[in-house]
Amino acid sequence: MADLRIINGTVLTMAPGYEPIADGVVCSREGLISYAGPADQASEPGDEQVIDASGCVVLPGLVNAHTHLAMTLFRGYADDMMLQEWLEDWIWPAEMRLRPEDVYWGSLLGACEMLRAGVTCFNDMYHIPEQAVAAALDSGIRACPSGVLLGFLPNAEQLLEEAIVFVRQLQQQNHSRIHPMLAPHALYTCPDEMLLKVGEGAVEAGVPIHIHLCETASEVQDSYDEHGESPIEHLNTLGLLDIPMLAAHCVHLSEADITLLAEKQVGIAHCPTSNMKLASGFAPVPELLEAGVVVGLGTDGCASNNNLDMLAEAHLAALLHKVHSGDPTTIPAHTALAMATRLSAQALGLGDIIGTLEAGKRADIILVDMSSPHLQPPRDPVSHLIYAAHGSDVKTTIVEGQIVMNDGEVLTVDEAEVIARATQCAARVTDIAG
Amino acid sequence: MADLRIINGTVLTMAPGYEPIADGVVCSREGLISYAGPADQASEPGDEQVIDASGCVVLPGLVNAHTHLAMTLFRGYADDMMLQEWLEDWIWPAEMRLRPEDVYWGSLLGACEMLRAGVTCFNDMYHIPEQAVAAALDSGIRACPSGVLLGFLPNAEQLLEEAIVFVRQLQQQNHSRIHPMLAPHALYTCPDEMLLKVGEGAVEAGVPIHIHLCETASEVQDSYDEHGESPIEHLNTLGLLDIPMLAAHCVHLSEADITLLAEKQVGIAHCPTSNMKLASGFAPVPELLEAGVVVGLGTDGCASNNNLDMLAEAHLAALLHKVHSGDPTTIPAHTALAMATRLSAQALGLGDIIGTLEAGKRADIILVDMSSPHLQPPRDPVSHLIYAAHGSDVKTTIVEGQIVMNDGEVLTVDEAEVIARATQCAARVTDIAG
Repeated sequence: MADLRIINGTVLTMAPGYEPIADGVVCSREGLISYAGPADQASEPGDEQVIDASGCVVLPGLVNAHTHLAMTLFRGYADDMMLQEWLEDWIWPAEMRLRPEDVYWGSLLGACEMLRAGVTCFNDMYHIPEQAVAAALDSGIRACPSGVLLGFLPNAEQLLEEAIVFVRQLQQQNHSRIHPMLAPHALYTCPDEMLLKVGEGAVEAGVPIHIHLCETASEVQDSYDEHGESPIEHLNTLGLLDIPMLAAHCVHLSEADITLLAEKQVGIAHCPTSNMKLASGFAPVPELLEAGVVVGLGTDGCASNNNLDMLAEAHLAALLHKVHSGDPTTIPAHTALAMATRLSAQALGLGDIIGTLEAGKRADIILVDMSSPHLQPPRDPVSHLIYAAHGSDVKTTIVEGQIVMNDGEVLTVDEAEVIARATQCAARVTDIAG
Repeated sequence: MADLRIINGTVLTMAPGYEPIADGVVCSREGLISYAGPADQASEPGDEQVIDASGCVVLPGLVNAHTHLAMTLFRGYADDMMLQEWLEDWIWPAEMRLRPEDVYWGSLLGACEMLRAGVTCFNDMYHIPEQAVAAALDSGIRACPSGVLLGFLPNAEQLLEEAIVFVRQLQQQNHSRIHPMLAPHALYTCPDEMLLKVGEGAVEAGVPIHIHLCETASEVQDSYDEHGESPIEHLNTLGLLDIPMLAAHCVHLSEADITLLAEKQVGIAHCPTSNMKLASGFAPVPELLEAGVVVGLGTDGCASNNNLDMLAEAHLAALLHKVHSGDPTTIPAHTALAMATRLSAQALGLGDIIGTLEAGKRADIILVDMSSPHLQPPRDPVSHLIYAAHGSDVKTTIVEGQIVMNDGEVLTVDEAEVIARATQCAARVTDIAG
């Protein structure tokens, strides 16, 4: 892998308090950022591969803090319906048919889509997670893999044991781009006893917990009915909030919940598209940010989105809370972009290694081409990224110093094969007669 | 102009009750659609230019039912602020500096952006409207131009007379792609006497009225305070609802308003991005559609969006009303796509000539490339268009049988020159010291 020197671009380091650097340079050496700053303070060029970022903005790779990657197979399979019908009549029956190769090709299709859209890291929760790992290793993307632990499955206990073994094995293999987690699906699908065991496993392995939390109003009501406290209070009662945690959704929260999330430094993956498409509700994101909670962004799975475009997610985060609060100053563009990068990384417990362009961090870098008519005239690049750009404006995607996508082409895998194989898998899995 | 024969695509005619045609053919002859249907029922090929739409969906061009096109110059100029500050401290002072060439290049930049994103027709309301006409004629896009009539301007009466002359001249010139309107800005900026004169002018010239209506809660309250009735009731009192009308926004409506809009067949341009970004509120779109009101979609101007991507607008329309109503079956994908095509055309009074692919209508046609990873695996193309596609997936744009954009390149103008000139204009207009 060649070292890289990215020149002539406008650099957004996304570090707290950063200002855009009009003539910036970003260098990577052995997969780490060695410099990100003004051109006139950079070291002399050596024998690095030079990338000309003229007309581009250079920023950290986008971090998708919550998805179910292989659900690309279900894109467009079941839209515009009630949550229970969607799950029980469509998604779960199809997932019963999943074979390892389905998860592999579905994950790889999602990895191609994300790399094209500048997403360099994803936090996954899905069945047969070793296949998502294989897809991540093959495509060159960074991943936080985990299986789905569901208490109602007959082999729930076995799956939990396997999940802990999975984490341990990945830790031994020590892939620099793979950061495993343990993922109990949700409070309403995992009994307390199981959650406690997950907590023990997470502490022993030193990995965070990835969980769905307070996505729907009924989930919260059920917790009050069963436990006399909110789901977040109940997790605290169980001691689980003292373990690093990424909680997806967090739509229906009390003030006490928000205080607890801030105090316990729980990371949040806000998923605005999914919350809108499934009519889950409006997450109190301005209130969470005000309380000091770290709120990142996630796409959720492709059956409830239906894409993996993190710029679209940041766009929606900026728009949704304006109209919901009635205040057009809510979640300004720079906050939305921070959520898609630095805050998502922090929420995943990876804030020390990714999420900003700072020397010593992993060289996860994207170039966004700002030359198209819809991004003209040139002005604040952060405004254009959030309010006008699409994932397809990403020109180059770099993960740990490796150029994995350039000019709309993923360089690490054969995209035509990925599409063909994923299409075959999708046809079989969703063929009701199959 | 060669006649066209588009083969091998999946055709969505968007006519009421249509079904996708898997192997469809669309033919244009002398700028009109001569056939749209299954390949096996099409006439034998003649000497038409053949367009291979393999891997593409073929559908009517998208219709942007409300914009202020030259405001592309203000893209990213003033975001994330309160409406009055935005207007009074930023937009209006900049607009005071506009020269004809600014409006021309700003409109042309917007036309390039729209043609790339599959928008074949736009309904404009902006100063110096002959420049938007020039930009439309030069770029090949279809336009509904109108100036902005503001009662508080010292030369308001003169501007109204000029607007009527403008309409009459365009009617004499009889450009087949130019459909002028008369545009009083809004009820709160135009006194009754002026509105009545606009109405007379519209009736005499036989053109529709284009107006902002019920965009903010305070506008509605002011109408009750001043007139003792809602803005819509007041327009009815003035007799203006008996004239064909395109009303933009319609966010704050009573049940009586909705009944009146349906009874009087007022066309609506719903602008979800603008309503979200400016925190205007949630338009009662499901209720309007239920009442039989024709609701199209508009991007609004680039200072409150900040793009002109009608697929994004349709996407947001599908998502926003789900979360607002709490019902995920609200505004399904096929309704959102109808809003961006057939219903927008109807709302503009152009339902007889554009908005669907039917023999005899103008050949305004787009091809959307569905081969990218984010639009795979292949399934319901309408779902993919609404929930996963971007404007940049549009491969070819045809207006009245002329190919005006192909493979991301506008063929009618020099895009590099347009961007350079628009950037110069924007710099001068928004330079506070200038």
